[in-house]
This record gives sequence, C-alpha cells and structure tokens, in this order.
Amino acid sequence: MQDSETPATPGTGPSVAPACTLVVFGAKGDLTQRLLMPALYNLAGAGHLPAGFRVVGVDHNENTDAGWREALTETMQGFTRDDTAEFHPDRIDEATWRFVCERLRYHTGDFDAPETYRALDGILDGSAIFYLAVSARFFGPVIDHLGAAGLLDETDGRFRRVVVEKPFGSDLASARALNARILKSAREEQIFRIDHFLGKETVQGILALRFANRLIEPAWTGEHIDFIEITAAETIGVEGRARFYETTGALRDMVPNHLFQLLCMIAMEAPASLDAEAVRDAKAALIAAIRPPVGDAVRGQYGAGREDGRPVPGYRDEADVAAGSLTETYVALSLAIDTPRWQGVPFYLRTGKRLARRRTEIAIHFKRPHAELFGVGAAPNVLRLFVDPGSGLAGSLNVKRPGPAMALDPAVATLNGSADALPGVGYESLLFDAMKGDGSLFQRADMIEGAWAVVDSLIAAWKDAPVADYPAGSDGPVAADTLLNRRGHAWTPLPAE
Amino acid sequence: MQDSETPATPGTGPSVAPACTLVVFGAKGDLTQRLLMPALYNLAGAGHLPAGFRVVGVDHNENTDAGWREALTETMQGFTRDDTAEFHPDRIDEATWRFVCERLRYHTGDFDAPETYRALDGILDGSAIFYLAVSARFFGPVIDHLGAAGLLDETDGRFRRVVVEKPFGSDLASARALNARILKSAREEQIFRIDHFLGKETVQGILALRFANRLIEPAWTGEHIDFIEITAAETIGVEGRARFYETTGALRDMVPNHLFQLLCMIAMEAPASLDAEAVRDAKAALIAAIRPPVGDAVRGQYGAGREDGRPVPGYRDEADVAAGSLTETYVALSLAIDTPRWQGVPFYLRTGKRLARRRTEIAIHFKRPHAELFGVGAAPNVLRLFVDPGSGLAGSLNVKRPGPAMALDPAVATLNGSADALPGVGYESLLFDAMKGDGSLFQRADMIEGAWAVVDSLIAAWKDAPVADYPAGSDGPVAADTLLNRRGHAWTPLPAE
Repeated sequence: MQDSETPATPGTGPSVAPACTLVVFGAKGDLTQRLLMPALYNLAGAGHLPAGFRVVGVDHNENTDAGWREALTETMQGFTRDDTAEFHPDRIDEATWRFVCERLRYHTGDFDAPETYRALDGILDGSAIFYLAVSARFFGPVIDHLGAAGLLDETDGRFRRVVVEKPFGSDLASARALNARILKSAREEQIFRIDHFLGKETVQGILALRFANRLIEPAWTGEHIDFIEITAAETIGVEGRARFYETTGALRDMVPNHLFQLLCMIAMEAPASLDAEAVRDAKAALIAAIRPPVGDAVRGQYGAGREDGRPVPGYRDEADVAAGSLTETYVALSLAIDTPRWQGVPFYLRTGKRLARRRTEIAIHFKRPHAELFGVGAAPNVLRLFVDPGSGLAGSLNVKRPGPAMALDPAVATLNGSADALPGVGYESLLFDAMKGDGSLFQRADMIEGAWAVVDSLIAAWKDAPVADYPAGSDGPVAADTLLNRRGHAWTPLPAE
Repeated sequence: MQDSETPATPGTGPSVAPACTLVVFGAKGDLTQRLLMPALYNLAGAGHLPAGFRVVGVDHNENTDAGWREALTETMQGFTRDDTAEFHPDRIDEATWRFVCERLRYHTGDFDAPETYRALDGILDGSAIFYLAVSARFFGPVIDHLGAAGLLDETDGRFRRVVVEKPFGSDLASARALNARILKSAREEQIFRIDHFLGKETVQGILALRFANRLIEPAWTGEHIDFIEITAAETIGVEGRARFYETTGALRDMVPNHLFQLLCMIAMEAPASLDAEAVRDAKAALIAAIRPPVGDAVRGQYGAGREDGRPVPGYRDEADVAAGSLTETYVALSLAIDTPRWQGVPFYLRTGKRLARRRTEIAIHFKRPHAELFGVGAAPNVLRLFVDPGSGLAGSLNVKRPGPAMALDPAVATLNGSADALPGVGYESLLFDAMKGDGSLFQRADMIEGAWAVVDSLIAAWKDAPVADYPAGSDGPVAADTLLNRRGHAWTPLPAE
C-alpha cells in the first residue's frame, strides 16, 4: 500500500480521520504491540491519519516517551522476521513508521487511580478516543474514572469516545450490569464495543454482496437456502491463557460476540440505510429473532492428539487447567431464526481450539434445483465466504459437461480478495471508524445483551454438565456430526481444501 | 481430445451412436468439407462413432470413392494451415482420420433424378440419416424422392431420418408449405431441422445454468431482470453470397432461426423433462408468446467503411447486388414476451454484417438492488454469456472496496469454457444427437412456423421500405441506439472488450 518512494504525509480529504488523540490503556500489552500499532502504521501508510493525530499510551510500568518509542520500533522491525505474526511485512517503511512514532507519548499510571485521569486531563486537548486494551475487570473502573474526571465531556465540538475490548460480560446479568455502569458516565453513542471479527474484509463485504447485487439477492432466503454453516476453527490450544479460559470456555469466548456477528451479517434484513444506527437496528432485530439453542447444542473439550504431526497434550493437561475441568474448548449449535426469511433454515455454528485446520468461513448451502431435470447430477450450489485465512468467495455451480451429452460438471466461480487491499491486521477499519464516529461495526448495548440472552440458558444448562471429548487435530466431537446428520446435513470437512 | 498415442477404435457404451449410414446430399459442397467432415473426425476421436458407421456422399459431379477420400484427406490436412477455418487443428491424427476416411463412399447422382434414389436403395442397408447439405430449393424434391423410393420407411427396427439445413422457408406461407410437403413423406419425428447456433457449447449450457443452479434460478425473472440483449455480430460482408442474400436479408437469415433459438434458451420455462418433445414444447410455448415487433424494429444496410483498417465497399457496391437494393444487412428488434415471467422486460436482438467486432453474446442486465444502500455506486449486475468466439460466462458483481470506507468496486466472476472441451466446429453434438434420435436441439414444424409468424408482419412492413445506412466497421445504424435509449437502455458497445 505504502509506496516506499513517497514519504508518508498526513492525509487530507474525506478519507482522512479527524484530528484526535488515541489514549491506549494497556500500552505495554500484547494487543497494543501486535495489533494496534501495526493497524496505525497501515492507516498512516494509506494516508488515513491526519497531521493532528496523537497517541498516548497508559500503563502502570515506568517508561518514557523515548523508551516506549524505541521499544515499539524494535517490535515493529521484529514483525518482518516473525511469520507467525498477524502483521508480517517484508519491511517497515521508515517514513510511515516515523509518522506514527513521533506522535507517541507514554504516560505511567495506575488504571484505578484518580491521579492518572487528572494527569490525562492535563495532557489532552480536543478530541480523544480512550481505547481499553486492558483486562475486563478494569472496564468499569476506567470508565468510572474517565467520567468522574470529566474526560468524557464533549464540549466545544470535541468528541470523546471509549473503545471497549472483549469480553463484554460473562452472561446476561453481568453484561447488563456493565452496560448500566458504563452508561452512567457516557452516552451510548460514545461507546464503541469492539469485535475484531468485524474488521475482516470479507465480513464487511457481506453487506455489499447481499444488498448491492440483484443477481444474488433473490436467492438469499429460506425459499432457496437449505442450511448455513458458520465455522471459526483454530488449530492452537489454550496457549497459556488457561487462567482466563477456564472460567470462560468456547461458548462465552466466541459465540455471543464473534459468531453472532457473522450470523448478523449473513441473516439480517436490509438496513434502512448504512448509517450506524440503522445497521445496528437491523442486527439487533436479527439477534432478537434467534431462538435459544438448548437441546441443539454440543460442547467438547480437546484430548491429547496431534497438531501438524507433533503430539500435543489434552486440555486438562495444559498448565493452569483443573484436573477434572469441564470447560468446553469446542461448541456446535443449531440455531433457528424466527423471521419470515429464515423459516425452516438451520444455522449451524461451530468453533473450537485444536481442530484439524484453522479456518473461519461461512458456507451457504442452497437447495436442490426446482426442476428435477438433471436428476442426482445437480449437486446443490454452495457459496463459501472465506474470512480467515485469506478472503474472498467461491460459488459452486453446475454447468453442462462439454461434449455431446447433456450431463453436468461442477464448476466454481471465484472472487478473490483484492490484491491491492489494505494490508490489514483487522483493526484498521475499526480504528478508522471509531475516529470517524461510525459505530456500524461496533456492538450496541442492546445487541450485546440480546446475544447473551440467547446463550444464557445454555450457560445455565451446561454448568457442571459433562463435556464430550475430541482428539486434538480432529474435526471435533462426534456429537457435532450427529447434530447435523439427523437433519440430513453435514459439516464441510475441515482438512479438505 | 484424441490422444495421438491411442489409435482410434470404434467407441462402445452409451456414449456411442448406433450403427448407421450418413448420406450427405451435397458431398462436394462447402458445408460438407468445412464442417461435417471435421465434425465426424472429432466425433471419431472422442470415441462417439460405432464400428458400423458409414458415410455416403451424393453429388452430381463424377467422382469415385477413392477420389473423394483423397480430396477430403487433402482438405483436412489443409485445415492445419488455415487459421481462418472453423476447424484449425495443429495436426490431423492419422488413425482417427483413417477411421472416418475408410468409411466414405461416393455416389454420383442428380438430386432430382429418381434413379439416384433407386441406386441409394441398393447401397443402403439398415439405419440411415439423409443430410440435406444442399440449396433450399432441393429440400422438397429430395424428400419427395426419398419418400417415393421407400427410403424413409422404418421397418425391421431401422431408423431413417432427414437432416434439413436452413433456410427453412422464407416466410410463414413458404415454411408452412415446405412442412406440409415434407410431412407427406416422413413423420415429424424423422425430420431434424438443424440450427447450428444450437451446436455451440454455451447455448446448450444455458439450460444447465438456468435449471441446475438454485443460486441463479430465482433471479431469472422480470422481477429482477431489467432487459436482455442478444447480439450476433459479424465483421464480414456478404462475401460473394449476394445472389442468395439479396432475396433473404438479415431478418430472414438470422432472426426466426438463430436469434429466436437463443431467445428460447434464455427465456423458456423449465421443460417437464430433458426429453426432446418436452424441451421443444417449452420452446414452442415461448415462441408463441413473442409479440410481433412491428414499430420496435430497425433495419440497416452497410455503406462503405473500414474493416480491420482497410477500406471496404458498401453493400450496394458488392458483386451481384442491385444498385438501389433495399436488402437489410442489419436488424435490431425490441421484443416483448407475453408470459408472467417476462412482463415488462424488453428483449433486444441485433444482428448484422460488417459490424465493428465479431461477437455472438447474450447479456442479461439485472435491475438495481432493492435497497438504495449504496446509492449510485451499485451498478446493475450484468451476466454475459459468450457464444462465439470463445465460450463461457462472466457475471459482474459489486463488492466492497478494500479499505476502511464502505464503498463499492466492480468485480467479475467468470466461468470459462472447459479446456478439455471437444474441439468442436459446432456440428458434433448435432450430428451425434441426430444419430441417437434426440431432437431436443432441432427445430420442430410448430417452432419454425411460430417463428415465421412473429416476423411475417415485419417482412410485409419492410417490403420496399427504406433502409437505414451504417458505415462498415461501426456498431450499426443510429436508429438502433435510439430504439434502446428511449427506454433508458443502451447496447453493449461492440468494440469494447
């Protein structure tokens, strides 16, 4: 994106964010280093950041502006040698990074100490975004303090916004309580509850695909669609996060946020406009129409197995996991959506760790053709939307086999993600939207609470219940297959490509 | 297709035609040499011809079996050096050509002499197909003679069929008369009225595309389609055929046969099955629903201009053309189809000689998206079916532009003709179908008469009427643009690619 011959300069025009300061709570954390800084670098490279952009990092470790800049410069350079990083450029463009780096300031402060916020009030001038890249237990306190210190007052045309990372609550009651607490200090319009799945190009592209193409739009109903699969499969295990994961599990970690957001994009009605409130109204309506999946749900926990050929331990043998842990590392759900469009169409959601292949994908399985002209030769069309890794879509079609017989061959029409796409870690458009004040891709309080309401009964039903075993490196527990098979459906196998 | 390491052997199994003799009237003609022989060679190479396949060539020139074989061998070899030929292989596979060549016999005979047919009766044994690759004036007489000589009697399980080339009549009255005459000697099921446009892979593939794909099927109605273009554009002029063309013109030459057959494939309802009669019933019903286009029609005649940079004469300056000729070399029609599916959808047909580019193509223009979410950014989807040159399809879609803004980019999903397609001149599948007795791709009497009925009023209206001028090498007369523009539509430009 960034042409190395052109030194980065502040962008101008409508594709440039307004001048503001990004205050990052959790400046020393992984999220800041691995995702936010690369995202800012990419935004700068694409000319989306204004001259008046600043960053203030806040964390409890002692550091200086120079020290933080130096450490981050080293981290950024390190990504060029780290092909496991989300951000893995061939080189760091010097001018682009300088644009970001010279705007960085560091502030040492305790997240729960009023003086931290008084000091910030002295530093800040004009518009600001407070990014809470901190543990969830700080969400309430930090926002309380921001409010008490007057940092969220929007006077003299300045904006003051808060970006809240996940997890947002751990069930309906806690999410409601957190929303109520936050909304004492800020208006809903100031709160940007982030879900990084919505930063993926393919996910944002679903709205365009569905609502800007008359060739596709008419097929997008239960009249023509048989079932829909949403898969978010990881190959990694709990990776040292067990202390967090033991009390969370795959359902809370992935379903009411990430998977439901993908579900919204696929299944929501057309919003009245692309305005944030209209888009979120449509999503909230969809979430409200999801029927709780109790009885159509499977959970699993990975046992010992193999990943990439090497043996890996089972979940209960990971560090910090209780010996008889009942925490699920896999969830599969069959959901019904109670809208006219989706009568009779099951939505199958699955997510898990230590599965056979890393793949986030949506597969829309169409019904068989109306006319039985081609007999069993006409395999149902499937439209696959690739979210991660890669991006793009592939639609399987039936075409006439070349030659004198009227027989069918399978064919696949593809649209790959554009080669000149912003080289993204997934946070670029979310950060940009927060700066512009566009909340379309962020969660509103009612969406969050609606999502928790759907899974709350499942959380209750699963408390202390047994969890099915699946070997690491497999497609998940057998019960997940049964869930689909009893309706004559099957998951897209994970290893096949 | 033919593996040169494998000597051609007679095919076996269900993809092999039944044993029969192909009797070609017009053995010395262009059609036989340039299209039928290459088609037989390709069918042999693909293993579609049985051991018991024979060819008898009939023409009035004196010749012998050996002489005809030798001449055709030379012609076939010549195609490897002629890149203007429909059939232009790198080499002729010796075994494959030998398979065809050793089955060739030549019979000298006058088409209108009873002794020709008595002699054929002596030669023929078992099933036969009489292919009328002769001038239209011989169609009636040859079939009269075949009937009188008992050559069309299907006794002892043998079949006897007649393939009739075009033109089939020159208006409704003459087509009716010819059908009535033919049907005195043969049953309708024995008559295969050929239209070589239906030999094209893309055309045959339309049924599969429309009726074997639930992803596409729902969009294929006037609810979602704005208008449809069917183009058959040639760059060549009348090319020494003016004596025939002067009394025919573009309307008769192209519209009720070729263009209406493309129209049928695109617009017909799903047939009850793929059986020939069911398919033809559906086509006949579509033809019956076309409203005569009088008033929505434009005709033109090419004037002097340029082709491929070199100056070319106007039609009236071609050899054998009358000085003040009113024969049209271009036709554009706007048709309405009176079925529930196509209410309000104009079908624009155009065909002409000496146009800017050779292209036979169908373009389906979809309506704008229902939701006005993307404003003017959402260009209507267009699905283009390439018939000639090349084959395949391309669908234009709107996708999200990569990057932080919700803007659209155009994208094109393509399905190319399969690389391992039968290397066809377009007659292979038609010949094969005739041998198998499958009339799906052939015209039935009611279809022919229905098509003439649609254009008959236009033929009458255009008699002695002026004809619009267009320069050779252009997109056609200005009036053809006006025809679409007054409804807010426009032709796909011919030179653009």
